Amino acid sequence: MNVAFLGLGVMGYPMAGHLVSQGHSVTVYNRTADKADQWVSTHGGTSADTPKKAAVGQDIVFACVGNDDDVRSITLGEDGAFAGMSEGCIFVDHTTASAEVARELAEVASRQHLVFMDAPVSGGQQGAENGALTVMVGGEQAHFDRVAPVIDAYAKACTLMGPVGSGQLTKMVNQICIAGLVEALSEGLSFARAAGLDAHKVVDVISKGAAQSWQMENRYQTMLADEFAHGFAVDWMRKDLSICLAEARKNGAALPITAAVDQLYGEVQAMGGGRWDTSSLFARLEAMRTHSDH
Amino acid sequence: MNVAFLGLGVMGYPMAGHLVSQGHSVTVYNRTADKADQWVSTHGGTSADTPKKAAVGQDIVFACVGNDDDVRSITLGEDGAFAGMSEGCIFVDHTTASAEVARELAEVASRQHLVFMDAPVSGGQQGAENGALTVMVGGEQAHFDRVAPVIDAYAKACTLMGPVGSGQLTKMVNQICIAGLVEALSEGLSFARAAGLDAHKVVDVISKGAAQSWQMENRYQTMLADEFAHGFAVDWMRKDLSICLAEARKNGAALPITAAVDQLYGEVQAMGGGRWDTSSLFARLEAMRTHSDH
Repeated sequence: MNVAFLGLGVMGYPMAGHLVSQGHSVTVYNRTADKADQWVSTHGGTSADTPKKAAVGQDIVFACVGNDDDVRSITLGEDGAFAGMSEGCIFVDHTTASAEVARELAEVASRQHLVFMDAPVSGGQQGAENGALTVMVGGEQAHFDRVAPVIDAYAKACTLMGPVGSGQLTKMVNQICIAGLVEALSEGLSFARAAGLDAHKVVDVISKGAAQSWQMENRYQTMLADEFAHGFAVDWMRKDLSICLAEARKNGAALPITAAVDQLYGEVQAMGGGRWDTSSLFARLEAMRTHSDH
Repeated sequence: MNVAFLGLGVMGYPMAGHLVSQGHSVTVYNRTADKADQWVSTHGGTSADTPKKAAVGQDIVFACVGNDDDVRSITLGEDGAFAGMSEGCIFVDHTTASAEVARELAEVASRQHLVFMDAPVSGGQQGAENGALTVMVGGEQAHFDRVAPVIDAYAKACTLMGPVGSGQLTKMVNQICIAGLVEALSEGLSFARAAGLDAHKVVDVISKGAAQSWQMENRYQTMLADEFAHGFAVDWMRKDLSICLAEARKNGAALPITAAVDQLYGEVQAMGGGRWDTSSLFARLEAMRTHSDH
């Protein structure tokens, strides 16, 4: 199939590569062109210097960029992808963005006889590299049926969650569940240390029961080793939580602990930890606790 | 072996029964005597009308009662177990209590040539009934080696965590990890409903990744069904969190989210939910959200 991929960051770069491996003809676009050139020299395919040019003649245009404004800038305007797409072409946005921008762009696309679907992912850089992402899609069933077999190139699961925006809303639930969970785990581990316990032994015992979580199993060792370079960065998490909190103001959900943890992540940023991974809430607790010893 | 079991509540009643099944000679004591009579008529063994009488001639005296004061009242004083125990007899306390009371009673026991070990459990009523509790023990290795084979009657895991008090401290880490996690899950599910998503479908997708937890897998269905009678009650959780927060004041650990969730559990109590299970944080969020629709 003829496809484009817009945005070759830590996620998009390997995702676009998996599309080539599955035999698709891939045209890439990236804001900084040398990244696109590097990708082409590795994977073949072609690069274009605007989203519009990348989108011409494609069946599907994929994107994975930073935020709502980035999504608007690669789709709209005279150099945007919508200006290059032919009738019936589907734009699949893997960016974690608001449900609002998804609905807005689906509306614009529809007026031009194009299709826009939101399809944020989870699984992180490792999932992108291993082709094992979880993809949460918002849109119509008929369109989903056309894009899902292509998305399979980098997905271990790809699910239609409901109408446009539902992919983003599902990703928000994911981030809400993670934020409070990671802080709870951090408080538990920090308490264990303060109490003089062997924190590794404690996790070994409590991870068999009701306190168990993916985060406990996959992050406690790196947390205790003061390693915070194992995935999704605090800066990105704050962007996502900002989207969650804005959406909750509209739909009436109360997120008292999610909002508080967002503030704690702000303190991690203030410590200089914006690029640390989300488990660095533990570093914040430990910095305060050990500082108080002096 | 000759053992006593003090306290036949929802945990102690089946735990004492497993000791009989393993061939031990069991004497029971319960504050309200008819519960002890009922236990004897089911399991055989004998009952005593004071902790002291129950403790006479035993190798090990087990207990599972409500709180610090209850533990003191069954061990100390002229009717307390310590007054009946012979030199070298070990008192194993399965109550979730403070590390302080464990250290205090270990000190008293030691002066009388007795041994006190703290051994709080996790796994709930179901774990007690199925003989599949996780037991976290504080004390000395030599004493642990004597009691662990007997505890195996109702344990799937029994681990020595460190000196006296370490069992309680480990249980506190467990409760700290659970409190924030359950609220995060509750906020995620409440947000999913507010956003018009199919919450079951959302969990099906996100439970494969970084948001996964035992609570998500084992409680989301009952939460969404408004069923909050599936385990450990809010009243007991608040007692445990009170112990965690008091200990953290002493050891210098910061528990900002745990403290906030303790307050939210207080609001569940105010709603009349003291006997609901800990997942009822979801009921609190939903009560507010759906009330605001009117």
